[in-house]
Amino acid sequence: MAFFVQKFGGTSVGTVDRIEAVADKIVTSRAAGHDIVVVVSAMSGETNRLIGLAEQIQAQPTPRELDVLVSTGEQVTIALLCMALHKRDCPARSFTGAQVRILTDGSHTRARIREIDSIRIKDELGKGSVVVVAGFQGVDENGNITTLGRGGSDTSAVALAAALEADECQIYTDVKGVYTTDPRVVEDARLLRSITFEEMLELASLGAKVLQIRSVEFAGKYKVPLRVLSSFEDDPGTLISLEDDKEMEAPIISGIAFTRDEAKVTVTGVPDVPGVAFQVLGPVSDAGIEVDVIVQNVSADGSTDITFTVKRQDSEQTRALVADIVSRIGAREVTFDKKIAKISLVGVGMRSHAGIASKMFKTLADESINIQIITTSEIKISVVIEEKYLELAVRSLHAAFDLAGDAATL
Amino acid sequence: MAFFVQKFGGTSVGTVDRIEAVADKIVTSRAAGHDIVVVVSAMSGETNRLIGLAEQIQAQPTPRELDVLVSTGEQVTIALLCMALHKRDCPARSFTGAQVRILTDGSHTRARIREIDSIRIKDELGKGSVVVVAGFQGVDENGNITTLGRGGSDTSAVALAAALEADECQIYTDVKGVYTTDPRVVEDARLLRSITFEEMLELASLGAKVLQIRSVEFAGKYKVPLRVLSSFEDDPGTLISLEDDKEMEAPIISGIAFTRDEAKVTVTGVPDVPGVAFQVLGPVSDAGIEVDVIVQNVSADGSTDITFTVKRQDSEQTRALVADIVSRIGAREVTFDKKIAKISLVGVGMRSHAGIASKMFKTLADESINIQIITTSEIKISVVIEEKYLELAVRSLHAAFDLAGDAATL
Repeated sequence: MAFFVQKFGGTSVGTVDRIEAVADKIVTSRAAGHDIVVVVSAMSGETNRLIGLAEQIQAQPTPRELDVLVSTGEQVTIALLCMALHKRDCPARSFTGAQVRILTDGSHTRARIREIDSIRIKDELGKGSVVVVAGFQGVDENGNITTLGRGGSDTSAVALAAALEADECQIYTDVKGVYTTDPRVVEDARLLRSITFEEMLELASLGAKVLQIRSVEFAGKYKVPLRVLSSFEDDPGTLISLEDDKEMEAPIISGIAFTRDEAKVTVTGVPDVPGVAFQVLGPVSDAGIEVDVIVQNVSADGSTDITFTVKRQDSEQTRALVADIVSRIGAREVTFDKKIAKISLVGVGMRSHAGIASKMFKTLADESINIQIITTSEIKISVVIEEKYLELAVRSLHAAFDLAGDAATL
Repeated sequence: MAFFVQKFGGTSVGTVDRIEAVADKIVTSRAAGHDIVVVVSAMSGETNRLIGLAEQIQAQPTPRELDVLVSTGEQVTIALLCMALHKRDCPARSFTGAQVRILTDGSHTRARIREIDSIRIKDELGKGSVVVVAGFQGVDENGNITTLGRGGSDTSAVALAAALEADECQIYTDVKGVYTTDPRVVEDARLLRSITFEEMLELASLGAKVLQIRSVEFAGKYKVPLRVLSSFEDDPGTLISLEDDKEMEAPIISGIAFTRDEAKVTVTGVPDVPGVAFQVLGPVSDAGIEVDVIVQNVSADGSTDITFTVKRQDSEQTRALVADIVSRIGAREVTFDKKIAKISLVGVGMRSHAGIASKMFKTLADESINIQIITTSEIKISVVIEEKYLELAVRSLHAAFDLAGDAATL
């Protein structure tokens, strides 16, 4: 017998029929002897409907009231799911974030969890009930309703698993788990059976949008084993855990992530003096623009080039800011390129294996794909290339590193 | 400067535009220097939508979870109304029933209010805020969400007015107030400027469906002056208050109520022995069937007749129950009549004025309308007649008792 926190997202509870299917899954877990705490999101579309109502009134709805409004979405789901469980003669009890006392700070619409009162939940579990908790929401120390921001239900689930010391936090979603790369690009992408937190963080932030990155950080910090699996199929999915838990023969590369929603900005002829990178990038980050890759190469003849990438939607605003900077610091010029893609190889195994980078570069060269930027971290190598070569590059790398799956693992 | 609790029902907050109109009304009240606590219902249709979802899952949804579900309706409205007030630069803060701590018993879906913590609301009022409270809901001593049953928002408003010692509880609705009778039947029905709690109770229970009867009882008990007025027009409406507050020259008759949704059951030849009325009516009320008028006439030759009325929708069930009783107690026969209507004259003034009843009977006789049953109370005379004469009877009585209004009062 184990103790699981199971989280079901908006698509998994999007209709009454799907809620009934979720109830069936929970009943099956219980029949296997497990204790279950369930965390649910709002039915898909509901949060947007509520925000739509608010925006008809205020272009920028008051954050405190927006939280009061949107938190009703999850409250509806917990009640309906409990009814579906009762219909199956399964004892169950619903709790809002305030009732369970998921204590957060007072930052409405993006609150951070501080503490969870586990006593009430443990009481209910002790009585043999399934405990159904509204995700995404909490309460501040003054009793105000708060929300954790979009995707916060994953974070609620991990936080509950940590506070209650669950054996596993299971995130049910509409995919089967984490793949070596996007199966829409590489047909024989393989479902990963296990992956480390670090790898998952690199993959998630780079575009494999399976889990909220914040919840992965949280799970890693509190050492909560996290499993991603499908609401609609019967498959164990992907287990995300500490490196130590991984099998000995871990693969060198776990997956290939990519993104094509970035734009590249290069400032050339920047005077190579201390503080110049800050002069270029300070105003950009002050404007709330998220900067991803930053590369500065060694200096030649007293000047250098700085390249960075931003979200494509921020490129016009960035252009205006940087034009201003360039004239102020006396740089030569600034160039923009929206037609780029970033590809990253991720794997804890690469720490101890030389030659991954050169194999990557050779694979791309063999396809005559030019590399514009290279950056590396301990468990990741990223390159920026021309966007049109993205699919070709991902498929070539997937094959070169032998990531393809066979029927048995899919 | 006064302190008002203002309640807006589902129709008054049925759309975003109407919520904006409610905000305008509140801002006007505040500009006049008043302190305002607002109680709102769910947007019209929302409660039914939520119950519909529940009933797709459980024919009889679990009461605790049903409360968790439907209480979201009012929560949505409080948030949206606060946003509309903020847009008008009017400070406002929303509270759910749990946040304000409207403490109820644990009877889910029909909870009774026990206590209200007025401190938090008074704090907010002290800061100059409008306080917006979700009607219809509360919380039991274990922190479970409860609801007060349909129409419970009126009760919430009156309870808050009592706890906070407001000067007046104003119930905004889609009618202008309480009329001498239904304006759809009598064109020149007059809007009453004031009425006593007792009169309102008799009128409300008899079909003038303006206010929840429970909230009127509550207001009477705690001596909270209650005002019914229109959300859509600018008119002071009807004030419901203690008899003492009424002007000296109170009219003898305040209004004429009527209903046509009842059926009449007569059991003839009932042995006139002690306990026989209980034998006839006990099984009916045990079955949860509401009995309205009960009349038993004096006995002749050792047997008597008992007549009572039930809701028309309950008549088939009643027929089966009574058939069984009749044979058991040895009564002669039972007759049913669905085509009846009940008309009641209501007025505190009739206590001290003789001749009201005879004037009523003469008026009906002049129109050749036969009276089937007569019952009276301190401030009410009711008659049951054939349904087809209803409109004629109400119009004749309205004219005979001089209840018609003039342009000035409408």
